[in-house]
Amino acid sequence: MLKTRTNVTGLRCVKCGKHYDEQPDLYTCPACGIEGILDVEYDYDHAKGELNKTSLAQDQRQSIWRYLPVLPVGRASRLPTLQLGMTPLYHYPNFARELGLGGLYVKDDTRNPTGSFKDRASAIGVTKAAELGRDTISVASTGNAASSLAGFAANMGLRAFIFVPETAPEAKITQLLVYGATVFAVRGSYDQAYYLAMDAAAEFGWYNRNCAINAYLVEGKKTCGLEVGEQLQDDMADWLAVAVGDGCTIAGIWKGLMEMKELGVLNRLPRLLGVQAEGAAPIYESFSTGQPLKPVPANTLADSIAVGQPRNTTKALRAVKDSGGAYVKVSDDAILSAIPRLARATGVFAEPAGVTSLAGVLAARESGLIGPKDRVIIVATGNGLKDIKSAQRTVGKPHSVAPAIEDVRAALNQK
Amino acid sequence: MLKTRTNVTGLRCVKCGKHYDEQPDLYTCPACGIEGILDVEYDYDHAKGELNKTSLAQDQRQSIWRYLPVLPVGRASRLPTLQLGMTPLYHYPNFARELGLGGLYVKDDTRNPTGSFKDRASAIGVTKAAELGRDTISVASTGNAASSLAGFAANMGLRAFIFVPETAPEAKITQLLVYGATVFAVRGSYDQAYYLAMDAAAEFGWYNRNCAINAYLVEGKKTCGLEVGEQLQDDMADWLAVAVGDGCTIAGIWKGLMEMKELGVLNRLPRLLGVQAEGAAPIYESFSTGQPLKPVPANTLADSIAVGQPRNTTKALRAVKDSGGAYVKVSDDAILSAIPRLARATGVFAEPAGVTSLAGVLAARESGLIGPKDRVIIVATGNGLKDIKSAQRTVGKPHSVAPAIEDVRAALNQK
Repeated sequence: MLKTRTNVTGLRCVKCGKHYDEQPDLYTCPACGIEGILDVEYDYDHAKGELNKTSLAQDQRQSIWRYLPVLPVGRASRLPTLQLGMTPLYHYPNFARELGLGGLYVKDDTRNPTGSFKDRASAIGVTKAAELGRDTISVASTGNAASSLAGFAANMGLRAFIFVPETAPEAKITQLLVYGATVFAVRGSYDQAYYLAMDAAAEFGWYNRNCAINAYLVEGKKTCGLEVGEQLQDDMADWLAVAVGDGCTIAGIWKGLMEMKELGVLNRLPRLLGVQAEGAAPIYESFSTGQPLKPVPANTLADSIAVGQPRNTTKALRAVKDSGGAYVKVSDDAILSAIPRLARATGVFAEPAGVTSLAGVLAARESGLIGPKDRVIIVATGNGLKDIKSAQRTVGKPHSVAPAIEDVRAALNQK
Repeated sequence: MLKTRTNVTGLRCVKCGKHYDEQPDLYTCPACGIEGILDVEYDYDHAKGELNKTSLAQDQRQSIWRYLPVLPVGRASRLPTLQLGMTPLYHYPNFARELGLGGLYVKDDTRNPTGSFKDRASAIGVTKAAELGRDTISVASTGNAASSLAGFAANMGLRAFIFVPETAPEAKITQLLVYGATVFAVRGSYDQAYYLAMDAAAEFGWYNRNCAINAYLVEGKKTCGLEVGEQLQDDMADWLAVAVGDGCTIAGIWKGLMEMKELGVLNRLPRLLGVQAEGAAPIYESFSTGQPLKPVPANTLADSIAVGQPRNTTKALRAVKDSGGAYVKVSDDAILSAIPRLARATGVFAEPAGVTSLAGVLAARESGLIGPKDRVIIVATGNGLKDIKSAQRTVGKPHSVAPAIEDVRAALNQK
């Protein structure tokens, strides 16, 4: 069915372990149903010949496509042209000292084409849709996956059908309308928008970009882990912290890091710190108690991780456990205050979910989970411009002055 | 005074031609006053040995710092760490055909760290301030130069004092407060904010980042031209279109292109299309009539180019004339409709001033100024997320649906 060669050997159910050959419209494991998330497997022995320290040092492509040998995308497939990935990994020694850490790195995914980490998954989604000859693709999203899909669909000339909860921030909805997507604002929760999108994709025959059921999407997300692996190589940090909603992002990053170890690019892995918002922390609760996940009503202003019924729990729990890491939860106030804190120390302006990783690191440092010599990577997942209303709550007002120097002097003295 | 070597030979007044050695706080020509904009000059013979096709092909730095031999920045100076420049230059053959052009390239400066072209100038500004041992830097701006300076000042650990007209978009003001800048919202026009910032910088001893008077800033802006020159080399397009407010941007891009020709990286230059908004088109009027510039009350929703009294007229007129190009003006409606048009055809979401270049190309193609075989570069100068309110005016509403498949079907049939 696919026109061109990949190193994919098939798909394996994370629940029952059954192996499947690739086939169009195989989303979750037919035996296990919706919980049977599939994981894409590769011939790493073969990939290693094409992708290794030496090949990477010579590769001029500043994008995720430098990792094609471990992507589920044909070598001759039509790819989106928006420059995606190879986002900066910044090191801030002064900020690390201020926080009582041995090192602080920011993986700046606010710099992706539509301003979020989700672009990594959308790029794979539109590429797979085009490989299969589909002209429509759909998604349910709290916002970023939606605007991301809309942008990449526009770039590839595909139609996008998008389901958002009507509470999604205005900027995100506008962004996807501008890209020409057909948008359904669902009068209900993200979870309701999600199920409606699932039903509609099946009913109308759209290619389904929902990460939790489309195994290929996580392959896009893992490119963040591949990049961090390549950027730090044998100088890997002790921790990598990232916000967790559905669980696909942390699972994807972990897979990318594991692959870089498999490919001999790095020699040790970081521990993962999964950070959830207090008002939407079912994975944290399950990890802490060892009990099966209990859905909760999601209640956090970090809309990108406002997920009460996460759909990639198995992978998300396993990744953190395998890494020797932990889950923490943080309050909305802690998230909000991390916005200006990150921006002022680094110049990186991220949205609430984008700074949740920093809030989690502060909490974990406070509790002693992260030690004073530990070097920590935080993933800034979404651009602050996407949620100006939340950012506004964290800052004061400008000084209102008449066009007169006396007014400026008065304002300065008043400080 | 500068600690480290550069290829700068001095500064020359664009009005009287007098040459000056570099010195702290030399802004405009002492003989000519505010109209005596200075231009930084280099030893190109020396620079050519360090910066040429061969050196560039081997340079791994994906940032403006690959052009250090023609930047006014010491080799050992402390540089901002935010990844800046080397923004994508996309080619869209299908969109070109749709527009009746021989080729269409988008230079995507929405991808800079704070989301705009202005980051190029701010990076040089904060570097020069730090070289001079200053800990404060100030600017007047309609928005992007402000948020850009705020982000780069945060990154460098400098204090930023910023003057904006109180009508600047909310997102832009929030962005700079988040970065920790001290902001003065001036109850008046951009022009009034500008003069107040000038007075305050002199009064309080702040390093002045205003592009029109600080010769070094244009050196940052020219990096866009340097990049386009490197990206297309001997395959240069016929036209480069860019929005014009103060005139510094088009002058800067032109200088960068000229330098790339001087350095032997490209063999011919594009013609420049300067595009102004109808409600703020004094440079267009001066160019068309040959009369000296007459200030106008600025009235356009493209806030980044809402300049009634531009301060870099001499360079802006000269650049377009020298290139054999032209100025055009476009309506706010034409600007607005270019937002979704660009986004849907390319995946690039830009703010009003950011798509003004496209609106200008459409007008120039319509009038025959740009021919059917011409290959055209448009510069997308600012990210669409910076002005969601304007973008909202260009699109409809999402379909409001209950979480029921019947509602989705009804909405689809209704289209």
